[in-house]
Amino acid sequence: MQQLRYITRKIAPYEVLSEDGLQTIEANADTILEEIGIEFRDDPEALEIWRQAGADVQGERVRMPRGMARKIIQDNAPKQFTQLARNPDRSVEIGGNNTVFAPVYGPPFVRTLDEGRRYATLEDFQKIVKLAYMTPSLHHSGGTVCEPVDVPVNKRHLDMLYAHMRYSDKPFMGSVTAPERAEDTVAMAKLLFGAETVEQNVVTISLINANSPMTFDATMLGALKVYARAGQACIVTPFILAGAMAPVTIAGTLAQTLAEAMAGMAFAQLVRPGAPVVFGSFASSISMQSGAPTFGTPEPALVLYGAAALARRLGVPFRSGGSLCGAKIPDAQAAYESANTLLPTVLAGVNFTLHSAGWLEGGLATSLEKLVMDADQLEMMHAMANGVDLSDNGQAMDAIREVGPGSHYLGATHTQANFETAFFRSKIADNNSFEQWESEGGQDAAQRANTLWKKRLGEYEAPAIDPAIDEALQDYIARTKASMPDSFSS
Amino acid sequence: MQQLRYITRKIAPYEVLSEDGLQTIEANADTILEEIGIEFRDDPEALEIWRQAGADVQGERVRMPRGMARKIIQDNAPKQFTQLARNPDRSVEIGGNNTVFAPVYGPPFVRTLDEGRRYATLEDFQKIVKLAYMTPSLHHSGGTVCEPVDVPVNKRHLDMLYAHMRYSDKPFMGSVTAPERAEDTVAMAKLLFGAETVEQNVVTISLINANSPMTFDATMLGALKVYARAGQACIVTPFILAGAMAPVTIAGTLAQTLAEAMAGMAFAQLVRPGAPVVFGSFASSISMQSGAPTFGTPEPALVLYGAAALARRLGVPFRSGGSLCGAKIPDAQAAYESANTLLPTVLAGVNFTLHSAGWLEGGLATSLEKLVMDADQLEMMHAMANGVDLSDNGQAMDAIREVGPGSHYLGATHTQANFETAFFRSKIADNNSFEQWESEGGQDAAQRANTLWKKRLGEYEAPAIDPAIDEALQDYIARTKASMPDSFSS
Repeated sequence: MQQLRYITRKIAPYEVLSEDGLQTIEANADTILEEIGIEFRDDPEALEIWRQAGADVQGERVRMPRGMARKIIQDNAPKQFTQLARNPDRSVEIGGNNTVFAPVYGPPFVRTLDEGRRYATLEDFQKIVKLAYMTPSLHHSGGTVCEPVDVPVNKRHLDMLYAHMRYSDKPFMGSVTAPERAEDTVAMAKLLFGAETVEQNVVTISLINANSPMTFDATMLGALKVYARAGQACIVTPFILAGAMAPVTIAGTLAQTLAEAMAGMAFAQLVRPGAPVVFGSFASSISMQSGAPTFGTPEPALVLYGAAALARRLGVPFRSGGSLCGAKIPDAQAAYESANTLLPTVLAGVNFTLHSAGWLEGGLATSLEKLVMDADQLEMMHAMANGVDLSDNGQAMDAIREVGPGSHYLGATHTQANFETAFFRSKIADNNSFEQWESEGGQDAAQRANTLWKKRLGEYEAPAIDPAIDEALQDYIARTKASMPDSFSS
Repeated sequence: MQQLRYITRKIAPYEVLSEDGLQTIEANADTILEEIGIEFRDDPEALEIWRQAGADVQGERVRMPRGMARKIIQDNAPKQFTQLARNPDRSVEIGGNNTVFAPVYGPPFVRTLDEGRRYATLEDFQKIVKLAYMTPSLHHSGGTVCEPVDVPVNKRHLDMLYAHMRYSDKPFMGSVTAPERAEDTVAMAKLLFGAETVEQNVVTISLINANSPMTFDATMLGALKVYARAGQACIVTPFILAGAMAPVTIAGTLAQTLAEAMAGMAFAQLVRPGAPVVFGSFASSISMQSGAPTFGTPEPALVLYGAAALARRLGVPFRSGGSLCGAKIPDAQAAYESANTLLPTVLAGVNFTLHSAGWLEGGLATSLEKLVMDADQLEMMHAMANGVDLSDNGQAMDAIREVGPGSHYLGATHTQANFETAFFRSKIADNNSFEQWESEGGQDAAQRANTLWKKRLGEYEAPAIDPAIDEALQDYIARTKASMPDSFSS
């Protein structure tokens, strides 16, 4: 299985806002931080940190002078960083012109054509980690690829981390559901990579969601502080369903997103100057009929282009996008919506793409069929991001001279020399004749995807690991689990 | 049924080539025209026209000095023109920042969930014209929305034209399969619009394909001459499956496309200076496994962005894109591939989009389900092309001030004032809860589309027409049909 390196884009990012428009959004974000402020809840230490930095702290509300958050970030946060994988060939570069694809994050359900939809288990989790490992266009193992609801809430992060560490050699994400689970993440990473490596490098990246509008809660702040102090990366993401957590407009959502993300990233710099941070944006709209989130619509795509430009101007890596959809099954709705998110993701210049593959039903279900279908699209994006080859071979003038009017290029020297690599080849699309497709059973894309994920899992072999490290990890997990009672509530 | 006006884009076109890159392609196109030349086959008049214009004509091969074709086009062809519809509210502006959506063109088969796939008939043709008429996001009635194979080849253009003229009031396309069928198109248009209107306005637009590589045949040249002389619009389109009709590279395909399109458009100007022309590009790649055309892959999208930029520099309207796919059924493959064509279509700044809706199976079948599914995406593109609203209402700072941290926007004054129009609302996507979706039958997108096209056809009422005009059209068709024997071969 030939893995693909993360994408380094040769195409320019697409811009939907002019310089004036971007300055307007930035000024509005400053107004939000200055006038309205951000609440840092149930965390007196956070408020004290802000007070010492010169912010105006009243109760839990933190207001800051115009430009303060931006200056803290620009003076301290790295523009780009490397996240190490235990296999050095799988380490990824986050920021700049690079795009990294990670699988879906968070669904409590799994769906397959064989079993339909049901609650996810640890076995599903391990299976999805293995499938992501076997998927060339997933550069990253991700985090909560599904929620293993059969394992106690307070212990499952240990099993999830172990799965990423043991069954894959791609980079992975840390636990954020409690500060002590972030501590477990760092401790296990030290067992896997060695303490010195972890102290000097980014080996985990973790998802810190703002509690929009304009609020960070103690859980997320606690995890952020653990990771920032350990020099590990945090993605600070305002999670916004516009109309509920932000205004119903694109410009309003952008200003609030920028304000919240800047507040969180600046806070990370105050905790530890130079802590790697990623500007995150997750924005969808909601259905007027049902109140449910909608995906693949124009408004979130416009937010995506705008937020990516704001992150570039701020000088930090950007996370957004993916293959998002509201569809319940991997049908045409799922594909239209996912493509309408993924293309903007790549054209906007997203650096870290969570939910790149497998997302179904507004993030409630991980679909194994959709995972390999989406991954096929991700492969395509590698070719798209390469842009137009203008070398002599790319210009192909010799071929045009050789063939001339009224003939064809099939046997031309240039065609023969380039055919194997010339065009993207889908693993899922059927391009045979109608008659051949029909005679082979007339399968739809989801049925072919079902065959493909089973084939990939069937070929899975676990990457080698030092047995002493494996034993240390298992020992850590056993001891930590033994130290507390099971909890299924939090 | 509230029809949508053609799109006037407020967003900038996406560019994949730098100024240097575009100049390289243009220089290569000039080299093709100068060194290799274009064949104008079986049309001595065409060769004589080129000779008189100063081209180097040897046999049927026409070579022209660098810059000659470009200068002829830039000195004569309109940058933008209006195509009248018999309902003035449906007239479309072709060129500039405008994007017009027309349905699929050419399929011999139709496919529905109810009947599967079968050869198309005139009844299907009429049904599709009516459905396009009832579809708000199709600004244009198109041309051969399917091939009515039950009608003799030499007479079916009359029935097709009548269907567009009688069952719709949107603008339509002319027949190009023989010069005398183009003459019939102009004659019937004169009955519909009045002779003077047709002499002074564009009332038809017709698809003139180059026989790539670097060849125009007598059929297409004959139709082009009829339309140009009548002041009617022609879309000159190199039809390219890269690897067969052009080199396997993007830059090579672009240079050949530009050379062929320029030769055809310049020829139209020589026939009648000022004849309205559109730079067309249809490019797909082919599957290495089967030799079949593939759609929705990255390479055609890159060609599309590049060709649109070349057309802008030339100063003529541009046609490309659509909702293209190789899938046999309206499944996830169909949707991924279509979205991967449609988004680049809009972002590239295409002016006239053939195949916007209903295209299936590499253009072999018109799918009624896919037509309404695609049309839903077309509706979305209206919102996308509007870009970001930066008015005070769009900035929504009052809403952010009103709501503040930790609350929600659902009841905010600004939300209430904007909710109805804030977000795109799909007619096909299901955004209900999983439980509700399941209780309603767990339909996929194609099943919902089946319900929608039947509903729309059920609500169809033919637009009014002057009975005298209708009689004149029917009389013209009867006389023309009676003047020749049936032919099913050409």
